[in-house]
Amino acid sequence: MSAASQARRRRGPDQLEIVAFDRGNFSSYSACGIPYYVGGLVEDVASLVVRTPEVFREKYSIQVHLRHEVEAIDLDRGSLLVHDRAGGQRRREGFDDLMVATGATPVRPAMPGVDPEGVFGVQTLDDGVALRTYVSERKPRRAVIVGGGYIGLEMAEALCALGVETHLVEAEGQPMNTLDPDMGALVAGALQDFGTILHLGQEVAGFETGPDGRVTGVATSEGTIAAEVIVLGLGVKPNSELAAAAGVTVGPSGGVAVDRRMRTSHPAVWAGGDCAEKRHRVSGRPVAVALGTHANKEGRVAGINLGGGYATFPGVIGTAVTKVGALEVARTGLGEAEAAGAGFVVDAVVSESTTRAGYYPGATPITTKLVVERGTGRLLGGQIVGEEGAAKRIDAVALAVWNAMTVEELLGVDLAYAPPYSPVWDPVLAAARRAYEGLR
Amino acid sequence: MSAASQARRRRGPDQLEIVAFDRGNFSSYSACGIPYYVGGLVEDVASLVVRTPEVFREKYSIQVHLRHEVEAIDLDRGSLLVHDRAGGQRRREGFDDLMVATGATPVRPAMPGVDPEGVFGVQTLDDGVALRTYVSERKPRRAVIVGGGYIGLEMAEALCALGVETHLVEAEGQPMNTLDPDMGALVAGALQDFGTILHLGQEVAGFETGPDGRVTGVATSEGTIAAEVIVLGLGVKPNSELAAAAGVTVGPSGGVAVDRRMRTSHPAVWAGGDCAEKRHRVSGRPVAVALGTHANKEGRVAGINLGGGYATFPGVIGTAVTKVGALEVARTGLGEAEAAGAGFVVDAVVSESTTRAGYYPGATPITTKLVVERGTGRLLGGQIVGEEGAAKRIDAVALAVWNAMTVEELLGVDLAYAPPYSPVWDPVLAAARRAYEGLR
Repeated sequence: MSAASQARRRRGPDQLEIVAFDRGNFSSYSACGIPYYVGGLVEDVASLVVRTPEVFREKYSIQVHLRHEVEAIDLDRGSLLVHDRAGGQRRREGFDDLMVATGATPVRPAMPGVDPEGVFGVQTLDDGVALRTYVSERKPRRAVIVGGGYIGLEMAEALCALGVETHLVEAEGQPMNTLDPDMGALVAGALQDFGTILHLGQEVAGFETGPDGRVTGVATSEGTIAAEVIVLGLGVKPNSELAAAAGVTVGPSGGVAVDRRMRTSHPAVWAGGDCAEKRHRVSGRPVAVALGTHANKEGRVAGINLGGGYATFPGVIGTAVTKVGALEVARTGLGEAEAAGAGFVVDAVVSESTTRAGYYPGATPITTKLVVERGTGRLLGGQIVGEEGAAKRIDAVALAVWNAMTVEELLGVDLAYAPPYSPVWDPVLAAARRAYEGLR
Repeated sequence: MSAASQARRRRGPDQLEIVAFDRGNFSSYSACGIPYYVGGLVEDVASLVVRTPEVFREKYSIQVHLRHEVEAIDLDRGSLLVHDRAGGQRRREGFDDLMVATGATPVRPAMPGVDPEGVFGVQTLDDGVALRTYVSERKPRRAVIVGGGYIGLEMAEALCALGVETHLVEAEGQPMNTLDPDMGALVAGALQDFGTILHLGQEVAGFETGPDGRVTGVATSEGTIAAEVIVLGLGVKPNSELAAAAGVTVGPSGGVAVDRRMRTSHPAVWAGGDCAEKRHRVSGRPVAVALGTHANKEGRVAGINLGGGYATFPGVIGTAVTKVGALEVARTGLGEAEAAGAGFVVDAVVSESTTRAGYYPGATPITTKLVVERGTGRLLGGQIVGEEGAAKRIDAVALAVWNAMTVEELLGVDLAYAPPYSPVWDPVLAAARRAYEGLR
């Protein structure tokens, strides 16, 4: 819908007809808000919807058809096969230009069979509504989160807040694999602080079901965990099958391949959002990263181009942030293992500081890790874990990574200082200084 | 003392003797913490002292002589005239290299005569101790802050918190002249919210005194404000007289002129901190900016060079942040008037957003202003006013200004997004986007 809005800004209704299809019951919503809706922090599902189909129709002359699934794309004929899921009919819709924004689907554990009732992904708003309804109606005593990615962590907090005994099973030895292990250990502690029972280093082997077909537990490599509700938190994979079936190129990340204007391998087909491949600016590699902020930027770029303008998407550097209880956890660029995987030889430095001047009330510890290319001193990535006021400091690291700064350059930057907000050496600058001094 | 510590790291006591003189009763302290000490938020003056002279002597073999004022520098003989203010004696001390770190002095209103008792600057820790003692002993009912700079604002909040009726007199039409008027108006509101009585557009003509020689009020261009204590908040000027008297060059800003290694016009004399001139990276001009974070960085650079190493100070871009009650106020780069003064033709854009996703509990308004060079779209400066979580976002703007990014480049940067910390378009990115779209 970002693309649709941008295209409309450049071409009026008499110049461009815009029609959108979504197989679900909602469009133009914040998927990132779903865990907070399930946990009850956000009361009303309507507050997650940015613009309703009525607003799109009346204010933007954009027709949004909900409960309509596009089942096939015919590139030669320039048409779609659309299934009206409410009415049951199928019809063909023609197009001159097509924007593919099919999103992503939660990864399932590798196991045979269909998910039993009581297993939920948290990707679409329909998923969120279904999960919240299930939890409020069934009042489960125990839940298992399968996977310790961002969504898994946010759902663990949501379910703990609802008073559900919450287990988290993760195949790796730490939650949040996008962090290096030393930083991940801090996150594990925070999960336990609000009551999550961690099962690290355990693979999920299957779901167990009762006679009514509902889930009764999760079988792991170490035994069975009984639970009445299971949430998938293994991450997501791009929904690129529809485009692939039409002959559009899918990249090595599994996302639809796009150029810098968000055009696919077919000149009339554009893509953006979780289904589209992105380029990582530091590793130079194609990646699949599902994140609303990328989706919005890509939609804007695609929409400007669809409307006859010119805009480009500059790629991503893997910046992410999440809240784990009182802990704020953020990362950007490459972690140690990622950097090694991309061919860099790196040194890493961990620096301890405080969010405010040490003498100022409310100062709390903050841990900053920087990953630095050996020899050049170029900053490749950073990770920050701390309490109130810690998370968004990653933006300074992100801008330094984005601009390919060295740690020596970063340590001299004029960042904001006042005792309520920072020690005299801002934690990011202190980390850069420590990296510079430690690596010489 | 930053310089001294860095020099010691590179040269042991057998290679380099290091002696420091300070005319006051404290060394190596956080001057920025003084308003919070006066207001009682920081209880113990000792917590503002980073390292005592004893620690410097025992751990670093650095001799710190407090209550010793250097009255003259003899560059030909390589010696100082030092006045032991406690003992009363004067003596000569020789040096091979000299570091001048004489700090700054609060600006006084232009009026004849000596300040009466009850008028305080807030620059040295001695000033802070004297003011806190005066307030706790005399229990003034009314105070006047002369000048609405950072210190003036912080002192207004401190005195209001102590229950003192606090007036703030400012010659300009707004407090905090480092902000553009539209942003300054938001600060004026916050000052009034915690009880400050504002007298804007009024010049201070003189202090009034009682028969006991103590201050009884401030005469302004609009009348007299009775008060038992006056605090100077007009900003500070570099203490460059000592160096100037010795023949060391003082720059157009009034600060001691230094090169990138912090060396002055004399090869044996170095300078850093509030007394030293800095180069503004955006305007290219010499400036005097008194701020602990610059002082620390410059001290580090000077100390590395004094110790035989090589380091350079890259200049400043005028980043600053302060807390005004619940309001967080930050700025970086050039404001509209500053930019015009430096010869830029600019456009400015103000963007309203929230600190968290709109639906997430605790989201509060945040106003971001960007100043952009016309034609090139280069970001020259930014200002942010908002509540919790607003201030440190200026660091992202600062890094963009530092790297001479355009607003088009900035709007595409991968900044951290999650609903507890940001809308899907971070306020800084939203402002950049608005600037880009508005300026085309």
